[in-house]
Amino acid sequence: MQRPPANGLNLEFLTELTILLEKLEDDHSCRGMVLTSSLPGIFSAGIDMGELTLTASHGPEHVTAFWRALQTFIINLYQSHLVTIATITGHAPAGGCLLSLACDYRVMAAGNFTIGISAVRAGLFPPAWIQMLLSDIIGKRQAELSILQGKLYSPEEALQLGLVDKVVPETDMMSAAESELRQWLQVPDAARILTKSNLRRKLLQAFEHNREREVEEITRFIQTDSFQNNLKEFMQNLKNKKR
Amino acid sequence: MQRPPANGLNLEFLTELTILLEKLEDDHSCRGMVLTSSLPGIFSAGIDMGELTLTASHGPEHVTAFWRALQTFIINLYQSHLVTIATITGHAPAGGCLLSLACDYRVMAAGNFTIGISAVRAGLFPPAWIQMLLSDIIGKRQAELSILQGKLYSPEEALQLGLVDKVVPETDMMSAAESELRQWLQVPDAARILTKSNLRRKLLQAFEHNREREVEEITRFIQTDSFQNNLKEFMQNLKNKKR
Amino acid sequence: MQRPPANGLNLEFLTELTILLEKLEDDHSCRGMVLTSSLPGIFSAGIDMGELTLTASHGPEHVTAFWRALQTFIINLYQSHLVTIATITGHAPAGGCLLSLACDYRVMAAGNFTIGISAVRAGLFPPAWIQMLLSDIIGKRQAELSILQGKLYSPEEALQLGLVDKVVPETDMMSAAESELRQWLQVPDAARILTKSNLRRKLLQAFEHNREREVEEITRFIQTDSFQNNLKEFMQNLKNKKR
Repeated sequence: MQRPPANGLNLEFLTELTILLEKLEDDHSCRGMVLTSSLPGIFSAGIDMGELTLTASHGPEHVTAFWRALQTFIINLYQSHLVTIATITGHAPAGGCLLSLACDYRVMAAGNFTIGISAVRAGLFPPAWIQMLLSDIIGKRQAELSILQGKLYSPEEALQLGLVDKVVPETDMMSAAESELRQWLQVPDAARILTKSNLRRKLLQAFEHNREREVEEITRFIQTDSFQNNLKEFMQNLKNKKR
Repeated sequence: MQRPPANGLNLEFLTELTILLEKLEDDHSCRGMVLTSSLPGIFSAGIDMGELTLTASHGPEHVTAFWRALQTFIINLYQSHLVTIATITGHAPAGGCLLSLACDYRVMAAGNFTIGISAVRAGLFPPAWIQMLLSDIIGKRQAELSILQGKLYSPEEALQLGLVDKVVPETDMMSAAESELRQWLQVPDAARILTKSNLRRKLLQAFEHNREREVEEITRFIQTDSFQNNLKEFMQNLKNKKR
Repeated sequence: MQRPPANGLNLEFLTELTILLEKLEDDHSCRGMVLTSSLPGIFSAGIDMGELTLTASHGPEHVTAFWRALQTFIINLYQSHLVTIATITGHAPAGGCLLSLACDYRVMAAGNFTIGISAVRAGLFPPAWIQMLLSDIIGKRQAELSILQGKLYSPEEALQLGLVDKVVPETDMMSAAESELRQWLQVPDAARILTKSNLRRKLLQAFEHNREREVEEITRFIQTDSFQNNLKEFMQNLKNKKR
């Protein structure tokens, strides 16, 4: 990922990522991939909050299109028949964390970085399938505590919790990912793909069942005054921190 | 809670607790609460076993009414839009433990106290939603071991297991609860309430689906000779221990 | 279990085990059992791979009959009203591990043994209910990692993961199992049996719902060239290792 300054997820970027993933999946010589960032110190800041800010030229229809693109990329990544490794090379709050959760394995760089499903901090609530995705990885109780308080964890805390699978020095990220990838690819493809698809069916069914309703709910929620006010305050706080 | 000698849960006490919770929820200046006990050394001994003992003046209809009251309070507490903290100030066996499980966060007093879903010891079986409540918190396998053997844990074991979230000296209980409460209330209410409701929907659906059947099953089970005999033996053992 | 050389599971052996379990359950003086092996260093090698190898005299119908027998024994063991303890006296790969997972409690011998759901290594995929069985015991994420890579664990790793409940020296296996059994039998039978049945209902429903479709899927999958080739290679590798 290389969308300065922070790999923020907007409609255009998510569409590009979706097309790129499709190309890799159509390439029969490709059996695995590494999702990484070429921006220093940041994996992805998650949703570009501009996408959720309503303006005259940027109405609810845009939010609807954006949310559909987010759903599509995350779910395609989650059910990819490729082996997918995330190298979390820096901060990964909210949607940045989500990108990594959709992969098969997570390697995080040691350092002063944070990761977590911090959506409630911006007044946003993660839909049921994202809660399920996190619960499947760190257990229901820790997911609940984590989501309800929008917690952000250090790499060491994330490792302890099972939110990431390995923490290595920044310079060793790619070699750690490659060695992990090689290990996963020892299993025969047919058995691995069928097994992965079986393991993930339940979440995918829950997601599909609620897909359109979720888009409607989010679109409606984004338009409430209370959300737009929370968002303004949240973005103001971020700006103040940076100064 | 202040129903000497041990905050035993009977029909009257559960009805009072339910009304009290409703009042707090209707008070728009109230965003959180602490469930605690003013009796020394005991949080709650759980179900008042007298409620399950059949006598001439106290037939199966009473058991039915009692069980409905138990369901109602626990489930209302579980789905409360308030932030709910339990300060487990002493022993919390069976229904005492259950009260705390329905809260968002559990602080337990260090000391010679025990906590656990020990229902099978009295020959009683926890219905599916109570198993689910425990599984969601400590994981399915530990819940299974815990429930099948009616295990009771020390505060340190409970912390290790995730059954409680924090253990502090008895004198620090209220300040620990308040500081936790303050942290939870930093999240915008709308996002927190929606998220909590999403997170808990599955258990609530399972509960509602089976609510009436469970009441019938329990009422029938209570009337079996084997249960009434187990209960007598259990209460005799308790008395002998106290002597 | 005593079917040299490795307690491999074939149609005949599974049928014998199923009948034996039924006899124990019909014997009202029997409240618990220990599943063990009398072969040194091996609990069970799991599925006898000869059962999945297609030959002129051994067609797809045999695979169908074999898979049904496997389903029947494992599920009967899982829902047994007896207290069931597995003493894992040696290696327990794939189906050997599965046998132990269907029991209430697992004691493993310390030593140079391994255990795990290693099916993908032979190009086989564990159906949804086996994934669920493992997830219920070690958590969804560890089950996913374990199954997707066909991992095999040492007794210490298995204990750490929760895949087994206790590791003891080989000579103490039976006394450890008996002392555990005695503890489980302190709970009144009616409450224990109802509770166990409630706890396991969800998996049983998922299994029953898909039982026949699974048999068809497996029978079809076994007949693919890619599976038969993987199997030949896998068995050749095993032979080479033994030399």
